[in-house]
Amino acid sequence: MLILMTGDATREDIQRVKDKIAALGFIAHEIVGASRVAVAITGNKTKVNPDLFSMMHGVEEAVPVTKPYKLVGRAAKPENSEIDVDGETIGGQELAIIAGPCSVENWDQLIATAEVVKDAGARFLRGGAFKPRTSPYAFQGIKEEGLALLREAKLKTGLKVITEAKDVETLPAVAEVADVIQIGARNMQNFSLLEAVGDLRKPVMLKRGISATIEELLMSAEYILARGNMNVILCERGIRTFEPYTRNTLDLNAIPVIKKLSHLPIIVDPSHGIGMWDGVSAMALAGIAAGADGLMIEVHPNPEAALSDGAQSLRPDRFRELMQRVRAVAAAVDRTVAVEIA
Amino acid sequence: MLILMTGDATREDIQRVKDKIAALGFIAHEIVGASRVAVAITGNKTKVNPDLFSMMHGVEEAVPVTKPYKLVGRAAKPENSEIDVDGETIGGQELAIIAGPCSVENWDQLIATAEVVKDAGARFLRGGAFKPRTSPYAFQGIKEEGLALLREAKLKTGLKVITEAKDVETLPAVAEVADVIQIGARNMQNFSLLEAVGDLRKPVMLKRGISATIEELLMSAEYILARGNMNVILCERGIRTFEPYTRNTLDLNAIPVIKKLSHLPIIVDPSHGIGMWDGVSAMALAGIAAGADGLMIEVHPNPEAALSDGAQSLRPDRFRELMQRVRAVAAAVDRTVAVEIA
Amino acid sequence: MLILMTGDATREDIQRVKDKIAALGFIAHEIVGASRVAVAITGNKTKVNPDLFSMMHGVEEAVPVTKPYKLVGRAAKPENSEIDVDGETIGGQELAIIAGPCSVENWDQLIATAEVVKDAGARFLRGGAFKPRTSPYAFQGIKEEGLALLREAKLKTGLKVITEAKDVETLPAVAEVADVIQIGARNMQNFSLLEAVGDLRKPVMLKRGISATIEELLMSAEYILARGNMNVILCERGIRTFEPYTRNTLDLNAIPVIKKLSHLPIIVDPSHGIGMWDGVSAMALAGIAAGADGLMIEVHPNPEAALSDGAQSLRPDRFRELMQRVRAVAAAVDRTVAVEIA
Amino acid sequence: MLILMTGDATREDIQRVKDKIAALGFIAHEIVGASRVAVAITGNKTKVNPDLFSMMHGVEEAVPVTKPYKLVGRAAKPENSEIDVDGETIGGQELAIIAGPCSVENWDQLIATAEVVKDAGARFLRGGAFKPRTSPYAFQGIKEEGLALLREAKLKTGLKVITEAKDVETLPAVAEVADVIQIGARNMQNFSLLEAVGDLRKPVMLKRGISATIEELLMSAEYILARGNMNVILCERGIRTFEPYTRNTLDLNAIPVIKKLSHLPIIVDPSHGIGMWDGVSAMALAGIAAGADGLMIEVHPNPEAALSDGAQSLRPDRFRELMQRVRAVAAAVDRTVAVEIA
Repeated sequence: MLILMTGDATREDIQRVKDKIAALGFIAHEIVGASRVAVAITGNKTKVNPDLFSMMHGVEEAVPVTKPYKLVGRAAKPENSEIDVDGETIGGQELAIIAGPCSVENWDQLIATAEVVKDAGARFLRGGAFKPRTSPYAFQGIKEEGLALLREAKLKTGLKVITEAKDVETLPAVAEVADVIQIGARNMQNFSLLEAVGDLRKPVMLKRGISATIEELLMSAEYILARGNMNVILCERGIRTFEPYTRNTLDLNAIPVIKKLSHLPIIVDPSHGIGMWDGVSAMALAGIAAGADGLMIEVHPNPEAALSDGAQSLRPDRFRELMQRVRAVAAAVDRTVAVEIA
Repeated sequence: MLILMTGDATREDIQRVKDKIAALGFIAHEIVGASRVAVAITGNKTKVNPDLFSMMHGVEEAVPVTKPYKLVGRAAKPENSEIDVDGETIGGQELAIIAGPCSVENWDQLIATAEVVKDAGARFLRGGAFKPRTSPYAFQGIKEEGLALLREAKLKTGLKVITEAKDVETLPAVAEVADVIQIGARNMQNFSLLEAVGDLRKPVMLKRGISATIEELLMSAEYILARGNMNVILCERGIRTFEPYTRNTLDLNAIPVIKKLSHLPIIVDPSHGIGMWDGVSAMALAGIAAGADGLMIEVHPNPEAALSDGAQSLRPDRFRELMQRVRAVAAAVDRTVAVEIA
Repeated sequence: MLILMTGDATREDIQRVKDKIAALGFIAHEIVGASRVAVAITGNKTKVNPDLFSMMHGVEEAVPVTKPYKLVGRAAKPENSEIDVDGETIGGQELAIIAGPCSVENWDQLIATAEVVKDAGARFLRGGAFKPRTSPYAFQGIKEEGLALLREAKLKTGLKVITEAKDVETLPAVAEVADVIQIGARNMQNFSLLEAVGDLRKPVMLKRGISATIEELLMSAEYILARGNMNVILCERGIRTFEPYTRNTLDLNAIPVIKKLSHLPIIVDPSHGIGMWDGVSAMALAGIAAGADGLMIEVHPNPEAALSDGAQSLRPDRFRELMQRVRAVAAAVDRTVAVEIA
Repeated sequence: MLILMTGDATREDIQRVKDKIAALGFIAHEIVGASRVAVAITGNKTKVNPDLFSMMHGVEEAVPVTKPYKLVGRAAKPENSEIDVDGETIGGQELAIIAGPCSVENWDQLIATAEVVKDAGARFLRGGAFKPRTSPYAFQGIKEEGLALLREAKLKTGLKVITEAKDVETLPAVAEVADVIQIGARNMQNFSLLEAVGDLRKPVMLKRGISATIEELLMSAEYILARGNMNVILCERGIRTFEPYTRNTLDLNAIPVIKKLSHLPIIVDPSHGIGMWDGVSAMALAGIAAGADGLMIEVHPNPEAALSDGAQSLRPDRFRELMQRVRAVAAAVDRTVAVEIA
């Protein structure tokens, strides 16, 4: 159930609605939109009678929600969410460009990449410190040491840092350094981890699982919003299909669908999505044309020597080239990108 | 085996190579590129010894081909193929815009749509006369009557006509009217039909089957080229995945992959690809940004009343709007679109 | 719409119903069950009013059918269909065992295999004469020569012959020799071919397309029944999934689902389904346990030298072993298998 | 690298090999087979030179392992693993029958179900206390209370208890009650949880993720074995495909494949696999015929009122019927099932 308040509802009107919800034993979630407030009810096992609310002062309408998610839906908040990341915005007119190595390997690799991507117009630095890997024998990241290097790179460059939290145990350490906490595709339905980041107020980037439907992605986001953290950014990174040529099948259809169903920003990760460096630029441009709010791209100064995902990482010069083309496509769809530093 | 001729090889050099291939009991296919000629050998059951050709006059190199296709591959022809369609080109710098109704229903519907799409910049009119349908009880097209209407619309508007051939029996009638013969997704591995269009010299648009790999699509194209018809245009129209929200999953990853593997032009069909009208524009723009050579879009003057595929058809005004945005994105990736007629 | 007749309806009652359907411009299909007759109406574009029939003499009920298929559904015919194949039955208590080489290669290979499989208890000989192949350069069967050998093997062994018709052109030649005409997976939605076999009265084995849903398979069968050929046998032969280890994913879930939805017999093809000889026996036994009406298995006297599908073919001795285990599992689910010839 | 010891190698021989591995800075895993011991080396970043070991006393061969897993592979242990569960065995000649409700709801429901399944021949009781659910608003289990009821049911019936651990936090509580700790499909790549159960010595049932390849399942099992817990049981429970009729597609092809690749036991869960109660029996019998080591089946005294998964749960009487048929099929493939208690 969503209680849509009128445009001129007062704080008192809103509070009375929330009190009534609490009195019924349910949970009230206040969702602040541009022109009005909505209050979502969760925690009810059965349908709530709309008449309990529709006659209250300041209430425009009490809307039963038949979709399995509420807080992430457009019904709860018609306008796009813009997520503030320590002064930078994800979901606004300017595209969020996130770039950096798959894994943080050492200071030289990290800072060289950070400076290159910053100069080309990125405002966010990605880099894995804790790396979930399919094989127990594969490189699993340099962990705490990687976090320390990310913190240093942030101080030095001013870039905001995105890095993955792989479990509840290491989440506090990650949350201390990260400006945006990434939840990886394999953890999209690790509900304990979703609840833990839901209890924080830091922005969270939630990646779609390789075989998750769009609805399941939205339901996992709902886990985070339901705990009070509204700062969620979705990320399409490729799904598993029968096609063997590409590592995954980047599903750009998800962009217009998510834009229709949800107010949350959506980022495209073409590096994992297609999984071959010479397809990354085409898919990045396509993602922007499809309406994505930004890109997450793997860049490595020396892909052949990368400890992970070298085959899909761009060299610095190719990333710069790509950014110039991103600017042109962004303009064609009325979006902007931060300027290049000559 | 591919015999790559030198840039200054003479007609006689080429003929001697072809004669030798014939003498060995194999088939020679001459592939004329911008700067040189290649001769492909097919029909050999076992490997051909390169030494048989490499010392011949005018031969630069005899290259064994390990890929399961030859004539469609970049190795056989490094530069992009531009397919001439009765004066219009598919695969050149100008994007090919193909639009029209899913099915030809009657003269008023067809001509109204044809004029609208022409004014907006389309140069090709699509419209199904013979419609393969999953159910034997569904509308199967108005058949010969539809062909007659397409011929009339072509005469009246000057648009080139693309329509589907659904079997060998009705192919001659279709081929008489169509400027481009469409082979539908369900027929992508109807090898008898592929061989029949391979024996013609008319351009053929081959749609990817809903669960065909990119390699299988290329192999089906190879069936056509191997019979001597080099005028093949590929079409990505969505694959079948686990995602239920969209009708299909338009696989734009196929665009950069096909551009890498093959010289054939590739068109994107966002209407079938995503299968919902309010996602068509996003996917059309994404297709262009990804590097496609054109678009095939379903337009209907009155989608609610369409006899097939109404839910994914654009109204004329939305198509015009889309074309303006296509022009902007095309410019951003150095492509052009025919001008709008005011 | 299905018109269910009462158990004591007379020929005249049935004829009056059929005449009324014809008078309305629709097509009547009489479906003879064990205890009563049903008459299905097809050809109607809009709903038929049940009152037109429900008051007629001998009519028990006029049932609107909301499923997209009618004649293949359990509603049309509650009891299992038993297909007579020149004296042998498919769909009865005795399992139909179909075995033989993927392709007919020569007389020695064919007759050696035929005799081995007959001795082990098979009553049907499979063998491809016309072979649809993904590559135009792959072995496409020995065609008419293969048909001639199949005819000879049939005369010599008494086995019934199953072989594939790959197009409308070669169907007459195939239909002359085959006791059961196979429609391959790639042709499951070749509707012209379905209509052509629908016009015959010979049994047809329709293989599920590699990415066809169960409903689509039933709709394709409906094409055949709607033309009057009720002798259709379905075949599950593996679907395309993300799993790379097996050639396909044999979908045994389809067996109980099809048994619930349709009265048609269903055969399992574990050879194509799993695509590796050392998995064929496990999947064959599993298919019988799941309720399939028979098996189609590739057997080759010398799999390493087979011109197609050697990797999934069983040697004669392994086939004999398998048949002994099939007998044991069949008994456990109240089915029988023809006896072994010592 | 695997060091295969000779049949008559002494404890000293084995210890010397393990000491040398430790001296190189790697980890030695002793794998005790029926007739000889193998020692696997993990923790090496680069290839280990076989010559370092092949000349040592008691070493038969030093085998480089190219597969991405080692300890779970047949190369490491040719004979089947039999997992001891507090006196019962999983992986032996007798099939392991696991049955019970999807979720533990209350004492009456649990004990009624437990007694019914025990009488029918089950030796293991399943029941979820902590339930990971796609929606944050769905029933998530009765948690600690459920564990307490499971403990009581175990004392009362003597059945061994299998229940799911959904995160590292609640693992200790689950491990105290469970005889087998279940890792659910969504957590198959929750590597922190895998490592945590790898540090225990209790049997673990690892369910295949809905889009996990067989190799990925084996790699996840390798995480557990690599920490020293060899007591792993795999479980096939259905994969995600394009087919909409069934909830999942139970992939029985995985049974012969896993039996070929690994020595670990494999259980089939037809309830989740096909997701409709009237298909469960067919798939259960098929699983046994395919070679599975047991079944996990949802049984509920009143499926319509179940708090989760009612649509796929069997009533007690249908479960009893199924067990009788399981006994017959088991006998046909040389397996046994515990007797029914009249």
